[in-house]
Amino acid sequence: MPSSTVPEYAFAAPFTHPPVSPIRRLVPYASRPGTISMAGGYPAQELFDVAGLNAAAANVGARLADCLQYSNIEGQASLRHALAALSARRGISCDPDTELAVTGGSQQALALLARVMLQPGDVAFVESPGFPNSAQTMRHTGATVLTVPSGPEGVDVEALARMAEIHKPKLVSVVATFSNPCGATLTREKRLRLLALAVEHRFLLVEDDPYGELRFTGEAVPPILALATGEARNWAAYISSMSKTMAPGLRIGWMVAPPEVRRRCTGAKAADDMACSAWIQEIVAQYLGDGAYDRHVPRIREAYGSRCAALGDALREHMGGEIAFLQPQGGMFCWGRLTGAVDSTRLLPYAIEHEIVYVPGNAFYGDPAQADTQAMRLSFATMNEAQIAEGIVRLRRALRACEANEPVSIALAA
Amino acid sequence: MPSSTVPEYAFAAPFTHPPVSPIRRLVPYASRPGTISMAGGYPAQELFDVAGLNAAAANVGARLADCLQYSNIEGQASLRHALAALSARRGISCDPDTELAVTGGSQQALALLARVMLQPGDVAFVESPGFPNSAQTMRHTGATVLTVPSGPEGVDVEALARMAEIHKPKLVSVVATFSNPCGATLTREKRLRLLALAVEHRFLLVEDDPYGELRFTGEAVPPILALATGEARNWAAYISSMSKTMAPGLRIGWMVAPPEVRRRCTGAKAADDMACSAWIQEIVAQYLGDGAYDRHVPRIREAYGSRCAALGDALREHMGGEIAFLQPQGGMFCWGRLTGAVDSTRLLPYAIEHEIVYVPGNAFYGDPAQADTQAMRLSFATMNEAQIAEGIVRLRRALRACEANEPVSIALAA
Repeated sequence: MPSSTVPEYAFAAPFTHPPVSPIRRLVPYASRPGTISMAGGYPAQELFDVAGLNAAAANVGARLADCLQYSNIEGQASLRHALAALSARRGISCDPDTELAVTGGSQQALALLARVMLQPGDVAFVESPGFPNSAQTMRHTGATVLTVPSGPEGVDVEALARMAEIHKPKLVSVVATFSNPCGATLTREKRLRLLALAVEHRFLLVEDDPYGELRFTGEAVPPILALATGEARNWAAYISSMSKTMAPGLRIGWMVAPPEVRRRCTGAKAADDMACSAWIQEIVAQYLGDGAYDRHVPRIREAYGSRCAALGDALREHMGGEIAFLQPQGGMFCWGRLTGAVDSTRLLPYAIEHEIVYVPGNAFYGDPAQADTQAMRLSFATMNEAQIAEGIVRLRRALRACEANEPVSIALAA
Repeated sequence: MPSSTVPEYAFAAPFTHPPVSPIRRLVPYASRPGTISMAGGYPAQELFDVAGLNAAAANVGARLADCLQYSNIEGQASLRHALAALSARRGISCDPDTELAVTGGSQQALALLARVMLQPGDVAFVESPGFPNSAQTMRHTGATVLTVPSGPEGVDVEALARMAEIHKPKLVSVVATFSNPCGATLTREKRLRLLALAVEHRFLLVEDDPYGELRFTGEAVPPILALATGEARNWAAYISSMSKTMAPGLRIGWMVAPPEVRRRCTGAKAADDMACSAWIQEIVAQYLGDGAYDRHVPRIREAYGSRCAALGDALREHMGGEIAFLQPQGGMFCWGRLTGAVDSTRLLPYAIEHEIVYVPGNAFYGDPAQADTQAMRLSFATMNEAQIAEGIVRLRRALRACEANEPVSIALAA
């Protein structure tokens, strides 16, 4: 055991005072028996295709001896080709040998792109509100990470344009389809404008697309990279993940990036973790090759769509105008705003006491001063329709209790 | 496809001119049919415990639904506890909840430790010759990486002491047992001296121990962390891997580090790749829990020991004094030195033409000026005893052809 006095380590600046995740702080409450959690940022466990994955694994098990060595750093050829075919079905053509790389989720894809582009003194942009880990991986490079206002209609592209003039970012990361936390989707016009800005200011525009295949209603908009032609193609990267469609426990994602960028990401990955597991990669390639993925995604799309509809219905029926929201067209999240005097942080302990948990909006802002304190992220992914309806009934009760200043036993750290 | 002119990306400094790996350059030659490769830094495929791994996987498959979500960032509890027990058998006691974390091979453990400790302006030390990826992951932080002379008796601890006075490193990485490429093992006295230096100069001493369990002969020396008491425990970390004992394709390693360091590594991993695959972690935990690991390691130890003995015999029999070497007591590598006029780089194309491949020593030096140009790394892991003997016969023929200046058709890039 280490001695009891903590030595004064000289950590690298981004790690001197590690932030406490306000989302992770909620986990003990969200996992209480009887509690309905709309806090999770993960898919529904009961929708995993366990049989299909076991079938793919059995196939790989029969040739396991060939799947136990180091993988190519950029990924097994079988999986790269399968992911290139999947990307092509989303409108993105790419060369699996020079533009595509397998990564440990899309999180690692973003981390690698950040690492090869950014160093102290550089500037990167992220959306705010946005997924905290996206900003965090950029901050870890020592770069300055600035936030561009975003919301239920996606990132404010004209604000981004003004900020780019001033700050000259080297990397800009957006979730263009069914964003986390807002569930927002950027129009085609805004996507084209982002590409033009990337070319003009020579920043790498990274679209993180974990949710794009989970569209329930409305018309699909192509990924940004699918709209990139000529010079724009040199400044756009696409990253995606199997975490929301297959399972997070695979830790398989990928990037499509310009060859010179991808080549450096391969060098970064070699020094980071050598490669992704060849075993798991072969299972995912087998699952894609079996057609299991193409059969599975419509099933979860239907299930999540039904849950999303149930959430909208419940909010309209039980909360009246007390929570404003846009009905999401896909993804896993709904961004609601309390319209009364109570803000989402004040409401939270009451909600927990009433056995319904959400993530307050301020968890998704890098700068607390920018935070929309009325907002909350409601995930509709992991609860069924009846639980969702019951959860919103509980939320109304919690709001009433909060408005009445009733005593509450839950004490959350600030 | 990107347009044909390469845009001028402003990459982060460590990625502006990515190095070409001299080892990877050899792969096409090493994998030619008929060629005997002693170049690989990986274990023997035919020694993988495919049946045991499939049995563990089948067990996990029966409870797969519970292994598909995001893992804890620091690793599944089952695996952390199993790895703490394994570490304890190596002499290292630790708390699996505050000191141990599962990582993507020991490579990721080193990368995470480097990232939380190092930034531009800082100094880190690595051994030279040493595993190139160890130095590379530190360079990627922007820190200055200095090399401490090493060799068949391990890192020069007194040289390290003198350098530490001058350069004040924040992190020092060593392979203390059966090093790559030298096969060297540090004495207990030198390990204790390293710990004293770590306390004196307040650097984090990281021992990378992928090979320690592969001891064929001689007396075991405890891992450095097992010798750390009191304040020294605050400045020592231990990292290890399943890549050499189970299989590289699992991508499972671990760290034991002081809690404040480990906590920050968890934050770094969250932003890097969220976690290792829960599925694979559960398979490894099951394999360890089954006792399969404890049955398997003696088998591969015996096999590698026999191959190591065969290499020593062949070198003595066929090369006489023309290659000097110390008989390794474990691991996968033998460090040989050509004693004549021919150096290992000049010999290499002849060797390839004679269908025997090794890695020339200069591949393991960060600074070419320091390189021992006579040296070569011979892996005895992946070839059987007959192939090893034949390989050394071919090497002698190649040396004769080289000495005679015979024409050679292989042209290797510098």
